[in-house]
Amino acid sequence: MTVIDDLTSALGPGAVLTEPDDLAAYSTDWRGAGSGRPHCVVRPSATAEVATAVRLCHEAGVAVVPHGGGTGLSGGALPDDSGTQVVLSLARMRRVREVDAAGDTLTVDAGVVLADVQAAAEAVDRLFPLSLASEGSCTIGGNLATNAGGTAVLRYGMARELVLGLEVVLADGRVWDGLRPLRKDNTGYDLTQLFCGSEGTLGIITAATLRLFPATPRHATAWLALPSVEAAVSLLGQVRARAGQSLAAYELVSREALDTVLRHVPGARDPFGERHDWYALVELSGATDDEGLEPALEAALTAGFEASLVTDAVVAGSPTQRESLWLLREGISEAQNHDGASLKHDVSVPVALLPDLLADTAGRLEAVLPGVRLVTYGHVGDGNVHHNLAAALDGGSDDDLRAAAGDLADAIYDAVAERGGSISAEHGLGTAKRDANAARTDPVELDLMRSIKQALDPDGLMNPGKVLPPR
Amino acid sequence: MTVIDDLTSALGPGAVLTEPDDLAAYSTDWRGAGSGRPHCVVRPSATAEVATAVRLCHEAGVAVVPHGGGTGLSGGALPDDSGTQVVLSLARMRRVREVDAAGDTLTVDAGVVLADVQAAAEAVDRLFPLSLASEGSCTIGGNLATNAGGTAVLRYGMARELVLGLEVVLADGRVWDGLRPLRKDNTGYDLTQLFCGSEGTLGIITAATLRLFPATPRHATAWLALPSVEAAVSLLGQVRARAGQSLAAYELVSREALDTVLRHVPGARDPFGERHDWYALVELSGATDDEGLEPALEAALTAGFEASLVTDAVVAGSPTQRESLWLLREGISEAQNHDGASLKHDVSVPVALLPDLLADTAGRLEAVLPGVRLVTYGHVGDGNVHHNLAAALDGGSDDDLRAAAGDLADAIYDAVAERGGSISAEHGLGTAKRDANAARTDPVELDLMRSIKQALDPDGLMNPGKVLPPR
Repeated sequence: MTVIDDLTSALGPGAVLTEPDDLAAYSTDWRGAGSGRPHCVVRPSATAEVATAVRLCHEAGVAVVPHGGGTGLSGGALPDDSGTQVVLSLARMRRVREVDAAGDTLTVDAGVVLADVQAAAEAVDRLFPLSLASEGSCTIGGNLATNAGGTAVLRYGMARELVLGLEVVLADGRVWDGLRPLRKDNTGYDLTQLFCGSEGTLGIITAATLRLFPATPRHATAWLALPSVEAAVSLLGQVRARAGQSLAAYELVSREALDTVLRHVPGARDPFGERHDWYALVELSGATDDEGLEPALEAALTAGFEASLVTDAVVAGSPTQRESLWLLREGISEAQNHDGASLKHDVSVPVALLPDLLADTAGRLEAVLPGVRLVTYGHVGDGNVHHNLAAALDGGSDDDLRAAAGDLADAIYDAVAERGGSISAEHGLGTAKRDANAARTDPVELDLMRSIKQALDPDGLMNPGKVLPPR
Repeated sequence: MTVIDDLTSALGPGAVLTEPDDLAAYSTDWRGAGSGRPHCVVRPSATAEVATAVRLCHEAGVAVVPHGGGTGLSGGALPDDSGTQVVLSLARMRRVREVDAAGDTLTVDAGVVLADVQAAAEAVDRLFPLSLASEGSCTIGGNLATNAGGTAVLRYGMARELVLGLEVVLADGRVWDGLRPLRKDNTGYDLTQLFCGSEGTLGIITAATLRLFPATPRHATAWLALPSVEAAVSLLGQVRARAGQSLAAYELVSREALDTVLRHVPGARDPFGERHDWYALVELSGATDDEGLEPALEAALTAGFEASLVTDAVVAGSPTQRESLWLLREGISEAQNHDGASLKHDVSVPVALLPDLLADTAGRLEAVLPGVRLVTYGHVGDGNVHHNLAAALDGGSDDDLRAAAGDLADAIYDAVAERGGSISAEHGLGTAKRDANAARTDPVELDLMRSIKQALDPDGLMNPGKVLPPR
């Protein structure tokens, strides 16, 4: 019996994909970057089936690659090209198991799409704050396995801060039931946090109990033109002082990034007549009767204008206007898919060092590949920027860009490392950032991670080759 | 050479205590509960010295028991009674290494007393929100190693949520430098969260980079009389709806707990003429110019009176009055030390189940030991109560109480377990709760924890016997 026979007889033929046409979707990610060759794809519909599939693979010595919405940016959900790895898709695990509005918790299968998690919370007048550009496709299991970030981290934290408990299928097919709706529980090691962000290398998340928050249907949203990144950082302090914890998003957008959106995203429109170097999308959020939002935003903008931190500003006057402003930010990622090759980088430093980092990096990149386009945007409040690179519009070529990819990456990563930053702030390591991270990481830290990997996955069959380089 | 000789020659004679008089303070905890016998006490003054001490113990095959402020409630910092374990005190590690007000971070040695951490934040107009009754004695290293809770969890989270990075001496004496001031960093497993709450069984925390928050010097504080625990839970919703994220504390106090304070704490005074069954201390906090606090508190109390959720109320009119109200809550733990034997329990359930839990537990305890006094108080907003037991004032005896301790604990823990709760919400397991927890924990979960322990401490020398029962 091959593992395909085992899986088919245990889960039924409908749960196992083997045809090349069916496998194609699991062989590349949504940006078309990276590629691999699945031995087969297994699509269990319940935790017990995930456990069975993992157990059968474990017994056969076959590696398992968990797959959520396929929207990862570091290759974490792709099999290698050996044709021997089984891709395990969580897409059929899409039950909302329990909604507890009184207790502010929600328990869902791993395959529930993030937008559906948000909708389940909204249906009981609550907020599940995780929000990213891919929320219509990505799954909550993938969000937790990669510790996703997004635009609401500033107020609510990363994905790992939004989870109370997990259910995980372990490397040998046993199930750990850690689905606890408790706010406080000090009974041993925090296994939930260990699985969050481990990218499927320690086990497969099959369900999660999530934290809900009071709904924030009221928003005060502004799109600002800024003279510099320094101004963006200074203005953040001004906004924070006035908005406090109602500050929900503070996103930086470079002119290059805005131009990319204006070129490719239908309906996108520059709110200003003049061109500016930098923009910020600022949003405060609160309860329906929270009448302090608009005055706080106005006061912060007034202070910003007076201190020459803001050059121009437009405040959304309606939900439609708010959406059109958000489109300028949320459209960047999709727009880049239509804009030729894009080398994605996702780095963080302490917030105060951001201006210096960006200035330094720009010079280093120009030295590597003159004319390289910096499509820079990100979550300034978190010290996190997406520093994506594209070929010059006039005369640049994608081939030249790709040929310089390694040197360009080194230029960015070295600048980040010199400032004590992270070369993967929210996208994870997968295979794409794995080696670059290992080269810049204390061997003691790599050793600790390897020890944990060895302890929980002694045969090395859980998403092998991700996060940690092969020895 | 014995390990005492090794330590003395490496760290100097002043760093090693061997005299019985000196060891006494490390042989028992601050409540006088538990007892152990240290082989010696080593007091390093820097990370390199901690590393040397751990390495020497590792080479000698001697167990190491880390010791912070000695205020733990589960015996986690006590050596066993074999006389072979080295207690490693962090008390001389008390440098504030770096304060970064712009970046809202603070880096401190593990031995810095929590009150001094708070003061260092206050000195730059920031808040470090962790706050507990023992803050004048406990150390930040111990707070993180045990994932301390306290009265500000409702707004700011447990200790683990307040830390960005750690420095840890590992079982073999190597140092892991994970002191990163980054808000976002997805480069591998979350080792920081693994060490938080591991009670020194995986390594010794020697320093931490902490998150700071905007200062909240303005408070609106009320002491309320409530008809029932149900009323306390309902009122919490009313307060939350009006105060939002400015709700900083919501503490429940039973009449028994208040009486204990009134009997033993100098200066404590009942704010009301009449006796009531239950009380709550409610506090909103914000910036100096946050003029919404008092109106929000008043509105919540008015709604509470109208819905018969509040029987009486006093709002603090001055900082001194605020302190005198807090004394009634913060004094409980100390008062119990003067009130005869006290069996401490620290449990949590989903908030909505608290009234049912307390009612059920009261009946079960009375059946085990008629007349037993329930000194109940805690953090209602987190679903966490301290359910401490004392002998009846008239006719009860501490001996009878102690004799029934096991059955009383089982009565509480069973009621908690039936509701999916935790038998140690914030005090950790140490040795005191270790076996009771193991008996109620899924073997898969215990196995996972043992695998991690084995991976990071293969010789079992880091605080052995804590958290996990010996095999």
